[in-house]
Amino acid sequence: MTDLPPRLARFQPLSGMAMPRFAGLASFMRLPVLDTAAAVAEPLDIALFGIPFDSATTNRPGTRLGPRGIREQSALMRLVNHVTGASPYETCACADVGDVPVNPADVVDTLGRIETFVAPLVGAGITTLAIGGDHLVTYPLLRVIGRNSPVGLIHIDAHSDTTDSYFGGAKLTHGTPFRRAIEDGVLDPTRTVQIGIRGTLYARDERQWALDQGIRILEMETVIAQGLPAVIEEARSIVGAGPTYVSFDIDSLDPAFAPGTGTPEIGGFTSREALFLVRGLRGLNLVGADVVEVAPPLDPSGTTALVGATIAFELLCLLAEARGRRA
Amino acid sequence: MTDLPPRLARFQPLSGMAMPRFAGLASFMRLPVLDTAAAVAEPLDIALFGIPFDSATTNRPGTRLGPRGIREQSALMRLVNHVTGASPYETCACADVGDVPVNPADVVDTLGRIETFVAPLVGAGITTLAIGGDHLVTYPLLRVIGRNSPVGLIHIDAHSDTTDSYFGGAKLTHGTPFRRAIEDGVLDPTRTVQIGIRGTLYARDERQWALDQGIRILEMETVIAQGLPAVIEEARSIVGAGPTYVSFDIDSLDPAFAPGTGTPEIGGFTSREALFLVRGLRGLNLVGADVVEVAPPLDPSGTTALVGATIAFELLCLLAEARGRRA
Amino acid sequence: MTDLPPRLARFQPLSGMAMPRFAGLASFMRLPVLDTAAAVAEPLDIALFGIPFDSATTNRPGTRLGPRGIREQSALMRLVNHVTGASPYETCACADVGDVPVNPADVVDTLGRIETFVAPLVGAGITTLAIGGDHLVTYPLLRVIGRNSPVGLIHIDAHSDTTDSYFGGAKLTHGTPFRRAIEDGVLDPTRTVQIGIRGTLYARDERQWALDQGIRILEMETVIAQGLPAVIEEARSIVGAGPTYVSFDIDSLDPAFAPGTGTPEIGGFTSREALFLVRGLRGLNLVGADVVEVAPPLDPSGTTALVGATIAFELLCLLAEARGRRA
Amino acid sequence: MTDLPPRLARFQPLSGMAMPRFAGLASFMRLPVLDTAAAVAEPLDIALFGIPFDSATTNRPGTRLGPRGIREQSALMRLVNHVTGASPYETCACADVGDVPVNPADVVDTLGRIETFVAPLVGAGITTLAIGGDHLVTYPLLRVIGRNSPVGLIHIDAHSDTTDSYFGGAKLTHGTPFRRAIEDGVLDPTRTVQIGIRGTLYARDERQWALDQGIRILEMETVIAQGLPAVIEEARSIVGAGPTYVSFDIDSLDPAFAPGTGTPEIGGFTSREALFLVRGLRGLNLVGADVVEVAPPLDPSGTTALVGATIAFELLCLLAEARGRRA
Amino acid sequence: MTDLPPRLARFQPLSGMAMPRFAGLASFMRLPVLDTAAAVAEPLDIALFGIPFDSATTNRPGTRLGPRGIREQSALMRLVNHVTGASPYETCACADVGDVPVNPADVVDTLGRIETFVAPLVGAGITTLAIGGDHLVTYPLLRVIGRNSPVGLIHIDAHSDTTDSYFGGAKLTHGTPFRRAIEDGVLDPTRTVQIGIRGTLYARDERQWALDQGIRILEMETVIAQGLPAVIEEARSIVGAGPTYVSFDIDSLDPAFAPGTGTPEIGGFTSREALFLVRGLRGLNLVGADVVEVAPPLDPSGTTALVGATIAFELLCLLAEARGRRA
Amino acid sequence: MTDLPPRLARFQPLSGMAMPRFAGLASFMRLPVLDTAAAVAEPLDIALFGIPFDSATTNRPGTRLGPRGIREQSALMRLVNHVTGASPYETCACADVGDVPVNPADVVDTLGRIETFVAPLVGAGITTLAIGGDHLVTYPLLRVIGRNSPVGLIHIDAHSDTTDSYFGGAKLTHGTPFRRAIEDGVLDPTRTVQIGIRGTLYARDERQWALDQGIRILEMETVIAQGLPAVIEEARSIVGAGPTYVSFDIDSLDPAFAPGTGTPEIGGFTSREALFLVRGLRGLNLVGADVVEVAPPLDPSGTTALVGATIAFELLCLLAEARGRRA
Repeated sequence: MTDLPPRLARFQPLSGMAMPRFAGLASFMRLPVLDTAAAVAEPLDIALFGIPFDSATTNRPGTRLGPRGIREQSALMRLVNHVTGASPYETCACADVGDVPVNPADVVDTLGRIETFVAPLVGAGITTLAIGGDHLVTYPLLRVIGRNSPVGLIHIDAHSDTTDSYFGGAKLTHGTPFRRAIEDGVLDPTRTVQIGIRGTLYARDERQWALDQGIRILEMETVIAQGLPAVIEEARSIVGAGPTYVSFDIDSLDPAFAPGTGTPEIGGFTSREALFLVRGLRGLNLVGADVVEVAPPLDPSGTTALVGATIAFELLCLLAEARGRRA
Repeated sequence: MTDLPPRLARFQPLSGMAMPRFAGLASFMRLPVLDTAAAVAEPLDIALFGIPFDSATTNRPGTRLGPRGIREQSALMRLVNHVTGASPYETCACADVGDVPVNPADVVDTLGRIETFVAPLVGAGITTLAIGGDHLVTYPLLRVIGRNSPVGLIHIDAHSDTTDSYFGGAKLTHGTPFRRAIEDGVLDPTRTVQIGIRGTLYARDERQWALDQGIRILEMETVIAQGLPAVIEEARSIVGAGPTYVSFDIDSLDPAFAPGTGTPEIGGFTSREALFLVRGLRGLNLVGADVVEVAPPLDPSGTTALVGATIAFELLCLLAEARGRRA
Repeated sequence: MTDLPPRLARFQPLSGMAMPRFAGLASFMRLPVLDTAAAVAEPLDIALFGIPFDSATTNRPGTRLGPRGIREQSALMRLVNHVTGASPYETCACADVGDVPVNPADVVDTLGRIETFVAPLVGAGITTLAIGGDHLVTYPLLRVIGRNSPVGLIHIDAHSDTTDSYFGGAKLTHGTPFRRAIEDGVLDPTRTVQIGIRGTLYARDERQWALDQGIRILEMETVIAQGLPAVIEEARSIVGAGPTYVSFDIDSLDPAFAPGTGTPEIGGFTSREALFLVRGLRGLNLVGADVVEVAPPLDPSGTTALVGATIAFELLCLLAEARGRRA
Repeated sequence: MTDLPPRLARFQPLSGMAMPRFAGLASFMRLPVLDTAAAVAEPLDIALFGIPFDSATTNRPGTRLGPRGIREQSALMRLVNHVTGASPYETCACADVGDVPVNPADVVDTLGRIETFVAPLVGAGITTLAIGGDHLVTYPLLRVIGRNSPVGLIHIDAHSDTTDSYFGGAKLTHGTPFRRAIEDGVLDPTRTVQIGIRGTLYARDERQWALDQGIRILEMETVIAQGLPAVIEEARSIVGAGPTYVSFDIDSLDPAFAPGTGTPEIGGFTSREALFLVRGLRGLNLVGADVVEVAPPLDPSGTTALVGATIAFELLCLLAEARGRRA
Repeated sequence: MTDLPPRLARFQPLSGMAMPRFAGLASFMRLPVLDTAAAVAEPLDIALFGIPFDSATTNRPGTRLGPRGIREQSALMRLVNHVTGASPYETCACADVGDVPVNPADVVDTLGRIETFVAPLVGAGITTLAIGGDHLVTYPLLRVIGRNSPVGLIHIDAHSDTTDSYFGGAKLTHGTPFRRAIEDGVLDPTRTVQIGIRGTLYARDERQWALDQGIRILEMETVIAQGLPAVIEEARSIVGAGPTYVSFDIDSLDPAFAPGTGTPEIGGFTSREALFLVRGLRGLNLVGADVVEVAPPLDPSGTTALVGATIAFELLCLLAEARGRRA
Repeated sequence: MTDLPPRLARFQPLSGMAMPRFAGLASFMRLPVLDTAAAVAEPLDIALFGIPFDSATTNRPGTRLGPRGIREQSALMRLVNHVTGASPYETCACADVGDVPVNPADVVDTLGRIETFVAPLVGAGITTLAIGGDHLVTYPLLRVIGRNSPVGLIHIDAHSDTTDSYFGGAKLTHGTPFRRAIEDGVLDPTRTVQIGIRGTLYARDERQWALDQGIRILEMETVIAQGLPAVIEEARSIVGAGPTYVSFDIDSLDPAFAPGTGTPEIGGFTSREALFLVRGLRGLNLVGADVVEVAPPLDPSGTTALVGATIAFELLCLLAEARGRRA
């Protein structure tokens, strides 16, 4: 990476040739660490950060340790995408801006904290790549990013996460974020596609509300039948050229590939398929992304966090290219 | 699930909306718990029960904890099959009737106990869905279910389990159940198909006895070459319209998908293939089923037990539909 | 256990001689399972139940799986205390009355649910033995049990749990229950003793509020210096003859003995000391007890849950004897 | 170890200075491997062997992998006892003579196989040090060693293992070996002492049979009260100068020190106490020993197997010295 | 395996019918154990040995325990390849000749020790099948095997391992063996094909040196696009009829199938594909092979070691057939 | 911590009240992160850093991940020592200065890198607290700190680490650092005391060289017999008032308390004893310290790393007080 302009040269990952990958401070992609004020002052092009929050989880907890786990495994990411040739650090100033200071004992308070953390970044024109935490964290992210006009969404997941409420009235769980976002007008359901949905149902009409809003749900069995290229084509046409967010739930993968998650469903994507799918989003007008639901306590060999880190790198490549096109 | 008749309303799983899935007593599918006498008195339509027995295991033990592990993970099963639309609790009274009181120090005694436990259920016309335990437990189940006339068998497994004896004369191990069942006249080898068989051989003619009986062995390599739709078609034609049992050994899956088992063989099914295969048995005249060889001590993330629970739910859907057709 | 009156004969644990300890439904101490309405109708003498809640945890989660883990390991408990000779099932009707239907996404809602679950039991004169969950669950328990007059407390723990708030205002966490209980007037601080407290401090005066209320704090180093007999004597004199609650936090033990907990502090009790300490409470006027903070995901061999189950059995012996004395 | 006679020089452990301890074939203490025929032909002085059998286990299995686990960890044992100065390989020809070819599916058959394996060794005057396996394996060992006259026994364990039967008549489980041995007249109960016994009881008189035979039971609480020196003194006086066997069950240790076992009881020995206790047996007329109940699948860090290997080395020192005295 | 000539009869694996697979000394494939001098004296046809060395690893360590882990899991291998019908022990005298006595604190010293260990075997015409250890161990193997004329190479891996140096000058790491071997003239780059390469790059031209030497790199994405049959065809044509070595890095598999490795890359082979690929090498003029990078500490269920053992058996079949053709 | 001077206010740990302990970047004690140049420029009072190196390990590896593991668990450390009242951040500017950029494939190179990293810190008068890594890392630390005059040493360990060489000549392993340091004249053997030494011996005179130099070796059995207060008194008198280094090997603890280490020896310290011992060093003229041999891959619940972090905090308290006295 010779001859980078100074602005970018300062934001290169620590090389595994200089410091072994198991050593040194574990930041996302081994990038420099800034606080959000410094990130805004810079301003960065892309900010990576963690949202270590799992208090909206309805089954096994542990995703509060997701950012830590993904930071560790992201040390294995190098500089250049070997398939697409993309190299985000050549064109964008990227950094790890730390974790949202969550309140694990209060869901509502934490949602406010996430918005408070993210708003200045977005306000400064910085693209955000968030690492969860459980899937509820996408809701406040969409509230900030879709504040002025609702965004489109590529949602890769085993679950639709559009349930109304749990436990007799709990409106804010990791099973409800997209319903809340649509109700708030920050997510455009007609530009939303959900890919990989599967698993037994509470009721036959469980997903009717989502369908009624205009969400396109591509169940895993449909994905298999259509084939990934067709699925990618359909997803691209749904979101079109408008600003689009990508939310990647690690439980979209089969638990063989991603055992470390709280609500697994068998029959999911392989990691090869997941990579193919994400790479297929190249060229879209992406304005933000997240990787959620990695639970390190259930991941004895660290492979789930490695999948999360690799998907995050692929998303980073997409976000950097999208910024380049918009510039 | 509104407007169910009272007989069925009493046998609905505890909802994850009322009690979180990690909470409450861990029964199969969160169904009510009855003892076998109550089950017979009712009578239930389908009885789920555990056979926590691994004393016939020739390699690593641990499947005695299989029923406990599958009960826990089965809390993730909901009410409706998202692919087939089947909903067994709408048409059948199902319950968890507990565990067979095995004697871990005595194989022969335990076989008797299994028969004693199962016979009244079968006698009352209740369909059984058993959760092992090692694969020897299928032998006494077949002895009860095939008592009057030998049943056909869909046997999904990495191993043929038709060896004559181990260790210089041990006739009752988890490698011998189907040979014993055929010798006893309770299993019809000409209506038996084994799918997914693989792994190195003791001798080139190791499976000759099984072939001589008329068993159709579809090795994994044949399955791959033929494709699953053709395999399903052949299996269906082999068992035909007669009463048929399904025995699902979790080691039919590749250890990537089911690491928690005592005698794994690499090169097995993915969970997507396993689901496709089981769903392909829809419409057969199924009279009982089991899921065996899940060993939780070798399953640190619980995914093998989740596969077991999901396959058990799929089998439950099939058994409920078969009862409906017979009624 | 011959010649028990019928009322008690119905509430005996399932024998490990009849059903192996790894088999059968996992209820606390292998006792019969009742719902709370049935428990009240009976009425039971002592109700065991779980509070699978960890959403007030400030560090690593996992205690929501504590009731499940302790239920499994409690299968190893038999009928008679080999040291004291106590046999609770000879004198008290005991049962597992299930889990409180918590709302993991809402701390305040859950506290209400706990009170709603426990109030009828206490109202019916049933003694409660609760299994957490994180330590905040003791707060609503004390609110019910101390509703009419504040109770005394033997609190065995590494932490005082009398902090005012966390994270800039969170009043309801597992570090605050006893402060809240004192503020509510349901816990008598002058009859409260905390044993085993240790670990680094946020500030030198961190425990001043607790001391100001009159709580006696016996730090671990004091316990070692004084010796356990003297500690027991002092604890007994502090709570005196009045109604007293025992709250046992598993992190009072050294993590060598109880690794499966979210906020461990090294330098704690051995399990022998813990048993000696609890047995030393014999003869007190105990009106309820709990065991909290067992986190099975951090407990690979199950020993922490075994400690929890054994301490729960010791507490059950004490509670049964106390009922006997009051009767 | 210079100037050893050729007979001994051939039976020295492979040095960790020549081959790292994690490398090379894992034999007990890194000793040469012989089959039993060669051992008898030699004849060896002391034979170490494994009995990989857990089919008589009443709770969690896994001790069938005990010999493998202890072999691996025994690579950490060096040549000289740093406390006693004993060095067994200077005076005795020791070797690993392999594993008994057990039949995991048949308890009775296996007991015969153990006797068949051991009898020629004992017949050739070789002292045996056996590594289990569950505790039932001690029964056939005593049948061979006590064949001509009943032996005395130092039995270190959490459990008395003198139950009559389990599961409605099972006479051969890991809870019954010493009762069977006494009935067979191969174990002298009046020269038997059990140390460390603890845990809840099935019934108040559970141990009455053992006491009636004259066995001295030193419960853990008695051990603590008396102190280990007095316990050792009493044990030595009970067995006296006659031939004595030592059976060491790893669950005599607290599960903090030995989590990898199937039936743990909290409140047990520390490893320092266990070492002190075993070293206190120096000078007795020991004729054989075993270490049992190590279950590697429950021992994620390998420490239980390390305790087993270290205790085995201490026993080996004792056995070698006893042979020296008898010679 | 009746009627084998005596020379072969002595080198048959211990049958799982005689000694259960979890029992007995863990040698590769349960073969007899010889030291290298005896192997040369015999001489064997094929020698299996371990190289327990991971001191050239740039990320997570643990492969020094690979030979031990693979020895254990190789107990599951039987005698006959169920797909190809190959049975190496019918035609070749095979044995486990132990481990190279490595020096874990010195890479250069160890490389010499490996050569010293292997040279007499190769000199005696024995084919070697080595089990690592990290991938650097292939370098000294090639130095011995390619000493007289450079060999061709089928290299199945996620990484090209042709980097020049790490950490500012370290020339000998597990990322450099094939560059060193080419520089030494023992590996023919024009007869070298690398299959399955993938993962992010340090720089766009990272693999230019390898390509410049004439190595054919088949990235995973190319493999998927071409299909395995075409890949096999191309690989075969590259190495042609000349002497060819096969080096199999376990991280060529996806971490779902082989989590136990230090430098995983997602998106890899399934175990079915790996088996298909290795079987596709049948008929080549193979003169040696290895399986490397299995790290048991990261492999909680043992499945990675099982993959390693199974691939080793497949390679053994190929090596035996190749010897047969050359004879 | 009100009214701290600005120089210290900038070096306070991130509070667990502001950011939950599982969140935020994992630095030692949650201190600010500086590079060494900035540390020297400041200059800091005390620098904490990691040496992620395990290539000199003779048994199981994994301590290269020790700094990462201890950083994570050190988040549980707060500000004030609850026993001594010490509060290092009130008097000393402390920071995490990162990891030494080790070369895992070259021991000699790495020793130079450690010296290069540490020399400027020591040259600037900064006290160092190093976190290993294996025990060889203490050797270069002593070479820098004892450069001008040899230091005294309190060495708490299971092993003496004064062996001459391993594997036929390897002089630089984790079993040799103190011999090398004495040979280099940077460690004063007459002011060196080793506490807790135990375990089997290679030879009876294995420790003669150390004794000949004048090292005082307090074996664990001596420590038990004398009692810790007497041991502390003796240790203090040996090192006297001169500059003294403390090297704490985590394997000094019993593996029950610290399972995550590569060369465990049973019969070690409890964590209570370890804390008592370290606190007993208060008032000595300490000039540096380290905590070594924590191996997270062998530490499934994180308790070993927690012990390491807590001991590091206790040492930090001692180092800060010693600086205060010298100032």
